[in-house]
Amino acid sequence: MGAKTQPARGMRDFLPGDVRRREYVIRVVKEVYERYGFEPLETPAVENIETLMGKYGEEGNQLIFKILKRGVHETTGEADLALRYDLTVPLARVVAEYRAQLPKFFKRYQIQPVWRADRPARGRFREFYQCDVDVLGSRSMIVEAELCGAASDVLMKLGFNEFTIRLNHRQVLTGLLEAAGIPSEKHNDALVVLDKLDKISQAGVIEELNRRGIVTTDEMLEILFIKAQDKSLAEVESQTEQGVNWTDYNTNLLMRLRERIGNNAQGSLGLYDLSKIVDLTKASLAGPHVQIDTSLARGLSYYTGAIMEINVPDLAGSLGGGGRYDNLVGMFLGQDVPACGFSLGLERIIVLMTEREMFPAALTVSTADVMLTIWDEDSMSDSLALAGQLRGAGLRVDLYPEADKIGKQLKYASAQKIPFVIVMGADESARGLVSLKEMSSGEQQTVSLELIAETIRERLKGRE
Amino acid sequence: MGAKTQPARGMRDFLPGDVRRREYVIRVVKEVYERYGFEPLETPAVENIETLMGKYGEEGNQLIFKILKRGVHETTGEADLALRYDLTVPLARVVAEYRAQLPKFFKRYQIQPVWRADRPARGRFREFYQCDVDVLGSRSMIVEAELCGAASDVLMKLGFNEFTIRLNHRQVLTGLLEAAGIPSEKHNDALVVLDKLDKISQAGVIEELNRRGIVTTDEMLEILFIKAQDKSLAEVESQTEQGVNWTDYNTNLLMRLRERIGNNAQGSLGLYDLSKIVDLTKASLAGPHVQIDTSLARGLSYYTGAIMEINVPDLAGSLGGGGRYDNLVGMFLGQDVPACGFSLGLERIIVLMTEREMFPAALTVSTADVMLTIWDEDSMSDSLALAGQLRGAGLRVDLYPEADKIGKQLKYASAQKIPFVIVMGADESARGLVSLKEMSSGEQQTVSLELIAETIRERLKGRE
Repeated sequence: MGAKTQPARGMRDFLPGDVRRREYVIRVVKEVYERYGFEPLETPAVENIETLMGKYGEEGNQLIFKILKRGVHETTGEADLALRYDLTVPLARVVAEYRAQLPKFFKRYQIQPVWRADRPARGRFREFYQCDVDVLGSRSMIVEAELCGAASDVLMKLGFNEFTIRLNHRQVLTGLLEAAGIPSEKHNDALVVLDKLDKISQAGVIEELNRRGIVTTDEMLEILFIKAQDKSLAEVESQTEQGVNWTDYNTNLLMRLRERIGNNAQGSLGLYDLSKIVDLTKASLAGPHVQIDTSLARGLSYYTGAIMEINVPDLAGSLGGGGRYDNLVGMFLGQDVPACGFSLGLERIIVLMTEREMFPAALTVSTADVMLTIWDEDSMSDSLALAGQLRGAGLRVDLYPEADKIGKQLKYASAQKIPFVIVMGADESARGLVSLKEMSSGEQQTVSLELIAETIRERLKGRE
Repeated sequence: MGAKTQPARGMRDFLPGDVRRREYVIRVVKEVYERYGFEPLETPAVENIETLMGKYGEEGNQLIFKILKRGVHETTGEADLALRYDLTVPLARVVAEYRAQLPKFFKRYQIQPVWRADRPARGRFREFYQCDVDVLGSRSMIVEAELCGAASDVLMKLGFNEFTIRLNHRQVLTGLLEAAGIPSEKHNDALVVLDKLDKISQAGVIEELNRRGIVTTDEMLEILFIKAQDKSLAEVESQTEQGVNWTDYNTNLLMRLRERIGNNAQGSLGLYDLSKIVDLTKASLAGPHVQIDTSLARGLSYYTGAIMEINVPDLAGSLGGGGRYDNLVGMFLGQDVPACGFSLGLERIIVLMTEREMFPAALTVSTADVMLTIWDEDSMSDSLALAGQLRGAGLRVDLYPEADKIGKQLKYASAQKIPFVIVMGADESARGLVSLKEMSSGEQQTVSLELIAETIRERLKGRE
């Protein structure tokens, strides 16, 4: 009997309809990113294992797919290579390797798969695509504004109108934690807990802070829950799904953050950046979507400045996210290069677009404009020659491969949703004529070989 | 300082210029294949290890990259997954898995990377792309003719005019070996040796046949060296590079093969196919390029019928190849599905096109149409807003991220080969005007904000 035929666990095959949907989204992403001046980069699926280890935290290390050494080493179980886990670490490696030949401001996009040995779940796969844009070489907040603008542009071109870009800053978080009197060795713990505010509520956060040895005081909580405690802010926030303009909300929140953070050095630097980003994004498509959210922390350890995440109504989890990571390239180069990037998750975008029927109808239609039938064994060459002629004229032509009964061939064309079929009967053929049949109406017309390409093109136009 | 920054051994990073060249070739391949009625398929990079093992022969097994089991199993060295080694075996798995929802004739193309732990060499990489087209579901030789036609079409669209499609048939080979009196258990050995005729000459072949225990007789050699021994054939062949029409050569060779093979059952079936393919390809773009070559054997063990390989002058090795494999799907499905396919090697095509300067000049030009400068910190928002306006009008816009001196910004645009730069001085800006500078001529004009997009578009057109 046959062998196992499913794809490996957590991996997927993409049949033609799936590929067309994926390519549609990728095309829009590329077009928008190119319009923002980004250029394409590709890196290998496989990296030296030491390039990846230690960059994603302990949990990340465990989720990396590791590749056995070849040859006699296979038996020792030693791994020397690993599958790409994200597109940011390979980018940092590339920038370190080719620094001399890259422009001072390296703006690249990269749309490639990554692999993580996560437990598969709905919408969570072990092979999935990331669509990254990053700017290397500048500390200007124009970079953050442009990235938010480009991501907004992509989503709007795809048909998403309601989305929020949650914005925070690692140094603001540090400032808040310091102002709240939490010792610096507990900052990571506190961030992990605060990140869960959405899921476990204030009481849950307090409980878990205590469990992790952070003694909470009223003053500390007032600082940490700055957003949730402010009534007017909470009210505005509850209107998200109706498409609130966040301008006043952000201004208000920035003011309160300034009060809380006071003279704290790190916090003040972060606040300056944050106000600048809010200000600059107003001049971009991201403007109406940016909302400062002090509970956003993001897991990855390499972020050093602004952090962002995009959310849409009715979807737990984000459509994408990113931030500034000024020190990562330094881990490869031995010298820091400022950097900031944004990553959109292709699979979640596709899941939502499919559920919400946001794909253009044309994507679901068959690829061929016309199918040529085979009249009999002797006329195969005639059909092949005509197929060549029509393709030369730019038409997409399917050629039925066998001299089956014409009825069977027509049935096949109909099942494949091919709009037109050409039948080359022996008599007509001898006089340089063919029959052109429109499958939807059954209508048939006799056309000369000289005019057939033009006729099909005209009639396809009439159907659009 | 810094960690290792090269890509893993035998793997490559593709900087923007490289990606553009690769995308250009891939776009042509896709366009042509779609015009022949093929639809896209994608499969995961990672397969269950048992899907791949045993499909590529002993040497193949050793070249497969194997992935360690996760978690506690990492220490045992056990591998449960492996990297895709070609696109044909995954296709066979896919056809077995989704047979019910695929059309009777499944015509798919697939352009994805594969991985082989080969020793890296010039033009030989451990990660490389294959561009495959396959037709499943038909035994008609129209399939072979269409595949040869499509591959020829691709090469011609890319600018290759001189190439040969070498054509042979596994059953003809079997027929020849049987007619030569070589026992069937020695057929594989004999094929491996004959395949080297190009490299080791007749004397070398005879020596190696003997070394492998095949006692050569004059009659056997006359049959095996059918092509090389025939003077008139050899003469035609020597003219390959001047672009010979192979029609007479093929007719002649088919006749001689028929004499040699006589009543041998397998050989006769193969010869029938071979004549049919030669006949049908005459009606396709492949016609002038098809040359029967009885010394072509091809390594992979899964071929059952016609085999093909494309060669160009001045390149050792082939640009692509393929053949019929009617039994491979059966290894997964438990029931045979006829199949035939063709694979083009992306990297060799790119190497040749680069060496021969066959890429369009436009590919080497920067991506942005215009760069916007930043006048000062206060006007960043104005530049951002204008960038948004121009992008909305379909232009590709780079925005310099920092308020550097204008001279420095212009220098950057020049280095990036961006044709136009916009400067928004404070005074002009206040009156709704900007300066548009053409970098090649240095020419500068003042344009209103309303007309700037249109002006740039017009002037870009003028430069084409």
